[in-house]
Amino acid sequence: MRAGYAGLMPEAPFIPVIPAGGSGTRLWPLSRRDRPKFLLDLTGEGRSLLQLTLDRLAPLADRPPIVVTGRAHAAAVREQLGDHEASGAVRVLAEPSARNSMPAIALAAALVEREEPDAVIGAFAADHLIKDEAAFARAVTAARDAAELGLLVTLGITPTCPSTAFGYIQAAGASADDAPADDAPADDAPADAALAGRLRAVGVEPVARFVEKPDRERAEEFIAAGMRWNAGMFVVRANVLLDELAAQIPALAAGVREIAAAHGTDEAQQVLERVWPTMTAIAIDHALAEPLAAQGRVAMVPAEFGWDDVGDFAALARRLRDREGRVLRGEDGTEVHVVGSASVDAHASRATVYGATDRHIALLGLQGVSIVDTEDALLVLADEQAQALQHLVDRLDAQGLDRLR
Amino acid sequence: MRAGYAGLMPEAPFIPVIPAGGSGTRLWPLSRRDRPKFLLDLTGEGRSLLQLTLDRLAPLADRPPIVVTGRAHAAAVREQLGDHEASGAVRVLAEPSARNSMPAIALAAALVEREEPDAVIGAFAADHLIKDEAAFARAVTAARDAAELGLLVTLGITPTCPSTAFGYIQAAGASADDAPADDAPADDAPADAALAGRLRAVGVEPVARFVEKPDRERAEEFIAAGMRWNAGMFVVRANVLLDELAAQIPALAAGVREIAAAHGTDEAQQVLERVWPTMTAIAIDHALAEPLAAQGRVAMVPAEFGWDDVGDFAALARRLRDREGRVLRGEDGTEVHVVGSASVDAHASRATVYGATDRHIALLGLQGVSIVDTEDALLVLADEQAQALQHLVDRLDAQGLDRLR
Repeated sequence: MRAGYAGLMPEAPFIPVIPAGGSGTRLWPLSRRDRPKFLLDLTGEGRSLLQLTLDRLAPLADRPPIVVTGRAHAAAVREQLGDHEASGAVRVLAEPSARNSMPAIALAAALVEREEPDAVIGAFAADHLIKDEAAFARAVTAARDAAELGLLVTLGITPTCPSTAFGYIQAAGASADDAPADDAPADDAPADAALAGRLRAVGVEPVARFVEKPDRERAEEFIAAGMRWNAGMFVVRANVLLDELAAQIPALAAGVREIAAAHGTDEAQQVLERVWPTMTAIAIDHALAEPLAAQGRVAMVPAEFGWDDVGDFAALARRLRDREGRVLRGEDGTEVHVVGSASVDAHASRATVYGATDRHIALLGLQGVSIVDTEDALLVLADEQAQALQHLVDRLDAQGLDRLR
Repeated sequence: MRAGYAGLMPEAPFIPVIPAGGSGTRLWPLSRRDRPKFLLDLTGEGRSLLQLTLDRLAPLADRPPIVVTGRAHAAAVREQLGDHEASGAVRVLAEPSARNSMPAIALAAALVEREEPDAVIGAFAADHLIKDEAAFARAVTAARDAAELGLLVTLGITPTCPSTAFGYIQAAGASADDAPADDAPADDAPADAALAGRLRAVGVEPVARFVEKPDRERAEEFIAAGMRWNAGMFVVRANVLLDELAAQIPALAAGVREIAAAHGTDEAQQVLERVWPTMTAIAIDHALAEPLAAQGRVAMVPAEFGWDDVGDFAALARRLRDREGRVLRGEDGTEVHVVGSASVDAHASRATVYGATDRHIALLGLQGVSIVDTEDALLVLADEQAQALQHLVDRLDAQGLDRLR
């Protein structure tokens, strides 16, 4: 029923993989160690980021999506999924310990590979917001097309500012004038020129390299050079991912394949407990994306669908301004967005309120402020300083307030 | 034991009268209808404004101070006074209904007059802050000297800014050039030139007139002309007050004298209930101070003792900066004053926190903000907009939140 991409119709089944992790400090005290961002209803729609992510991916999936989370959060994840796991509409994998994104995605890939080696998986974090879901679906479909050809495919986000919070992706074939200078320029040409041409014909670009989060000056150069944000979205055939991983970090690929082989047997738990602690903790960007880009094996779908990783309260405030929801507006310049059931009134204020208690909240004369009111902690934050929140969270332990983390 | 004022030694007994009223909206949600400002510990010293007022006046008193409050607040007042009323160290009068300051002060004066007609009373509101108590004591002593001579004496506060929140006092004898133009200039000369000379010799000045709260432009003229703030502090012989009141509003003087005559008898309550509702609701400024000033019967002690009526959160924040107390300071520019037991941390913030709950409060990047955290209401206010708080309090009823007032 899905509309195929012009000239290329995906044929392999598609399985979304949703890594659901995170430390829960950047949106504290809304997010906590035991209640990370993906479990929160940040938009006031009655759905957590995890639920919104599943809502967005389920219509694209040919097999049940796989959520990979930490053991500490498995119960909360299952509670949010309701009976979807029991009914087989979604699968939940619980990692014994956090090992960054590569082992989590590889474990899901190994389970998929055991059942359907050619199936395409798409990894999308559980705690991002996407505005235009139709555009997202089109981008995923294009990525599937390219992934079927054996490439690692990423979705490259059109930047809206020279952010220093994200890594960047540089397309191959950018002219020497456009590309920022770099000590170690990647090989510009994909392995197969005919393939590159075919990809370009449908709007998918070969990737020259992934670049880590830059400082402000380099971020501006990257923007000027047309580079895109790396949102950590990867679409790839399960067996391609594992074979390439076996070439890069053999023990990792062997480990997840061993766990997958035991899956569903009496030894499953024992194998998991034995093998998992030996897994290298590494991000998929470093483990696969960067080395494969250097080999001309990565493609990018340029994507513009209003993506945000909601990295701090300023980002969340911006997103809420884009959405329908509870808004107080006044002739005095008041524009206050409210998430949660709190009773709120404001005068001459531009603010965002996250009200998780039944206390009445009154605001006066605030400009660009976020307020998070929870039972045991209250945060009042100037949005322009949102990135410094870590200072306050880091000090909780020293203040004997570890229980608030 | 009290040091007499040079050349004049007060001889008549002195009785402080403390009107304790107020609607409790300007410091909401700290103050409430049932918990007006004077009952609050605003400075974090463990003493309410009423208690601080009594602490300040008790050493100056020759007879127990008299607190005049509304019936609704009498129980709370008595609770704060502990056993001082039972021990005779303070007297509490409960008005059946609010009638503004003149009936309240006149009632206390009538009780004093019945016992010692020549005694001097001094009326001082229960909800003001005073920084330099020694300077205050000196000013009161000077006022008593002048009051014994039969004058109504006020304490004229040296202004610190052209405030539009207070009335002003113009001394007589200001030159024509200095005095702001007015449609109805008051008689400039006191009735007795010898008396005026005697007053001036000890630093007490005759008063030409009282002026209502001005607009900003006029406030600046007043400051330039050397006028002083009217803090509503009046010192006067009890019989002088009542005799002058009898000349201005005869029924008021007769009413409080009738109530006083019945005080302590079996009919006391019955007389109070019958007479009190007939009292004219009027401020002492309008009922006595203005007409007597026009007759040259008012004197002013110029006073500089760090007075503040704590009229809004901005004023309170300013006062807290002057005081010892819980302060968080950081190299990041943080200066946060904390009142209450709340656990507070801040980064790059200049703020004041009133924490009445056990919630942890974290502040980030705020400049000139007051935060009031109570069990049922949270206020976050930019100090520069503090005077607009009334807007939010006024809307509570319409929002079905009358219980929060």
